[in-house]
Amino acid sequence: MTQELKRQVVEANQALKSSGLVALTWGNVSAIDRDSGLVAIKPSGVPYEELKPSNIVVVNLENDVIEGEFKPSSDTKTHLELYRNFSSIGAVVHTHSPSATAFSQAGKALACLGTTHADHFYGEVPLARALTAAELAQDYEHFTGVSIVECFEALGLDPVEMPAVLLRHHAPFTWGQNTVKAVENSIALEMCAQMALMSYQLNPELKPIPEHILKQHYQRKHGANAYYGQ
Amino acid sequence: MTQELKRQVVEANQALKSSGLVALTWGNVSAIDRDSGLVAIKPSGVPYEELKPSNIVVVNLENDVIEGEFKPSSDTKTHLELYRNFSSIGAVVHTHSPSATAFSQAGKALACLGTTHADHFYGEVPLARALTAAELAQDYEHFTGVSIVECFEALGLDPVEMPAVLLRHHAPFTWGQNTVKAVENSIALEMCAQMALMSYQLNPELKPIPEHILKQHYQRKHGANAYYGQ
Amino acid sequence: MTQELKRQVVEANQALKSSGLVALTWGNVSAIDRDSGLVAIKPSGVPYEELKPSNIVVVNLENDVIEGEFKPSSDTKTHLELYRNFSSIGAVVHTHSPSATAFSQAGKALACLGTTHADHFYGEVPLARALTAAELAQDYEHFTGVSIVECFEALGLDPVEMPAVLLRHHAPFTWGQNTVKAVENSIALEMCAQMALMSYQLNPELKPIPEHILKQHYQRKHGANAYYGQ
Amino acid sequence: MTQELKRQVVEANQALKSSGLVALTWGNVSAIDRDSGLVAIKPSGVPYEELKPSNIVVVNLENDVIEGEFKPSSDTKTHLELYRNFSSIGAVVHTHSPSATAFSQAGKALACLGTTHADHFYGEVPLARALTAAELAQDYEHFTGVSIVECFEALGLDPVEMPAVLLRHHAPFTWGQNTVKAVENSIALEMCAQMALMSYQLNPELKPIPEHILKQHYQRKHGANAYYGQ
Repeated sequence: MTQELKRQVVEANQALKSSGLVALTWGNVSAIDRDSGLVAIKPSGVPYEELKPSNIVVVNLENDVIEGEFKPSSDTKTHLELYRNFSSIGAVVHTHSPSATAFSQAGKALACLGTTHADHFYGEVPLARALTAAELAQDYEHFTGVSIVECFEALGLDPVEMPAVLLRHHAPFTWGQNTVKAVENSIALEMCAQMALMSYQLNPELKPIPEHILKQHYQRKHGANAYYGQ
Repeated sequence: MTQELKRQVVEANQALKSSGLVALTWGNVSAIDRDSGLVAIKPSGVPYEELKPSNIVVVNLENDVIEGEFKPSSDTKTHLELYRNFSSIGAVVHTHSPSATAFSQAGKALACLGTTHADHFYGEVPLARALTAAELAQDYEHFTGVSIVECFEALGLDPVEMPAVLLRHHAPFTWGQNTVKAVENSIALEMCAQMALMSYQLNPELKPIPEHILKQHYQRKHGANAYYGQ
Repeated sequence: MTQELKRQVVEANQALKSSGLVALTWGNVSAIDRDSGLVAIKPSGVPYEELKPSNIVVVNLENDVIEGEFKPSSDTKTHLELYRNFSSIGAVVHTHSPSATAFSQAGKALACLGTTHADHFYGEVPLARALTAAELAQDYEHFTGVSIVECFEALGLDPVEMPAVLLRHHAPFTWGQNTVKAVENSIALEMCAQMALMSYQLNPELKPIPEHILKQHYQRKHGANAYYGQ
Repeated sequence: MTQELKRQVVEANQALKSSGLVALTWGNVSAIDRDSGLVAIKPSGVPYEELKPSNIVVVNLENDVIEGEFKPSSDTKTHLELYRNFSSIGAVVHTHSPSATAFSQAGKALACLGTTHADHFYGEVPLARALTAAELAQDYEHFTGVSIVECFEALGLDPVEMPAVLLRHHAPFTWGQNTVKAVENSIALEMCAQMALMSYQLNPELKPIPEHILKQHYQRKHGANAYYGQ
């Protein structure tokens, strides 16, 4: 595990705070080194301003702590389930950002209502099912990851095209090829959820944008013929 | 009364301002030294930026000023009633944070709509009754405390598991084992109230989360088998 | 006209910006020296960060410019009408703060829904009538002031107990014994309007607080037996 | 193309960020030198804090890059269509500011609900039609500009009196005689949209302000007899 990856994890966790996505210690970022299969993650309950590469925890994909004196984030098993199943992702972010969390709490997937959404998420951000009482009792964080993977399989979603999910009763997870992209997706998700709340206030019957607009906008920024950026 | 406790009270009052929970001078924090039975509290109407240990007021549980040249917060008697009846608490916070205050004004308890809430409050944050005209005329702040204690007794609530209350027509109080925890509970309450407002916009008929999720999430952070934090 | 009063006017105008009450140049503060009958007011359209005592404009109560190289605020005649009729006030503030402006635009007076409101405004903040086309054509800003004074006379309101008004189709004015108090009233009005919006979302049929609570809370901070502050 | 214009474009793009109108890289500002017919515009996908005159891209009105090593904003063709058709404008701004975008997403023009709006926009801010699938496939950004120009022609709107438009399913564009005015119009549009959302919550049937108030307020700040500012 390189110092560089730990440094990225520190910066990304601190970006959650500075971008207003989290209050208190309500969020965490991890990143994986695919060569070694090691994951660097925030220590549990440590304030963002105290984070530094030396207190980042390193675990393997079986959740053994490999490096670090602190306990890893209580959400670590959820992160690991995502890394094990979504082989193309390099970083995972969990927040309780308010507008996205409102969709989780209300039990509503986040429909694509405009091009801001289409620029980042190829269609409706899905809502993973609630866990059963048995799953909660046995291994809450592991089955949280399982419910996400199940949701993506059931809907035939590609985690590269849809780098976000809403957990029923809980809050969102996002991911990306690296920590910067994963945090950007958390910011984009929160903004899209905020805009959706206001859009529904103006028109409670609002329908998603037409498929051809979704496709055009998504492909402007992603895929083979993308022409956004340098 | 140690300087240390006064210093904590200064910091916690200033944290109300920096965390955006209060405008003007609409909030106050106190802390109790259980050995001496003395309470350190914000002076009334003094701007947060002017606070320092030397202008913090010290009162005993009978509301006699023991130290300090200033008048204590006009809400002091409410704080004292809480310290007298909730023996496990070490600090009390009062704010008019906007979303929580909206629930107070609307006369609605704050149902537990998600795990953000369950991480901090074990169930619905209760609404204390309005005071009678006679109580108001006789001793407004004292009876405010009485209404909180009555509410907790009537509902069989443990102030450790439920460190917050909404006052009818007024605003919230929170508490905790120390000033840091009590302020964190004010921040959590405001965020949960804000998320609840947005969740109800999406689904006005929304029900509280299932009991087993509430229990799992609360116990993840609190109680004998808590595994959150270091 | 003393430098001190001009300095207070500079600070109060800048406080509108730093407290988030105004965008661009959408607000102005004035103060009156009752001995000389002279009013210091913001120059029109000048950014808040460029204000200094030397560019504050001084006018008399008949709207003659007495000092200053700049044109006074385009709202000056409204300020003057308030000073001429409300003899107890020392400063006037105009903003387009968003939540209060929403009540102006929706044509609704701001009912007293909680003690935050009662601490600052003794009852419902009134809505002044819209101007007629003739009044607009003849002297818009003067008749804006006239509509406020008429409103207070018609409702029998005391401008000391009710230091705010909502203008139909427009935005709020507040006032106070000095610039600090007048700006505080603008902050309080915006917060009360924001809380009211959220309270009505939770309960669209919400009624004002009982009269005895209004009275108790208002008198806690104001009047002969006030016991808030030092 | 002067350094001065590039410097203005840098400052205006950075003002989008500091004024809270954009997250991530969701916005861009351009300015035109009418003598040379050259347009200075933000490079695509470059963070605002990295902008400097040397990385601003210069294109002509036929969308040939004249200066600069970077690709211009992906929205450049929309800007150019506006410059070609609206001969009086000197700068164009595109944002996804949340409240204005909510109107775009909900498919609602922004009615003039108060004098804040009337001070900046002479009447209802129009909603341009959605693009057809054929237009999207052929040249998305060009036809976005075409839809705006068509909208203004169909409604008989003067782009000087109405320096803003809402794109269906997308977000707003604003413009002005220079970058400072164009950004001010983006700020004003977002504030008016936010206030409108709150006004409609209070009164879903709210009608636009009377025509004589619109006219008076608009002309107070604009046109031959304007008396706002210095």
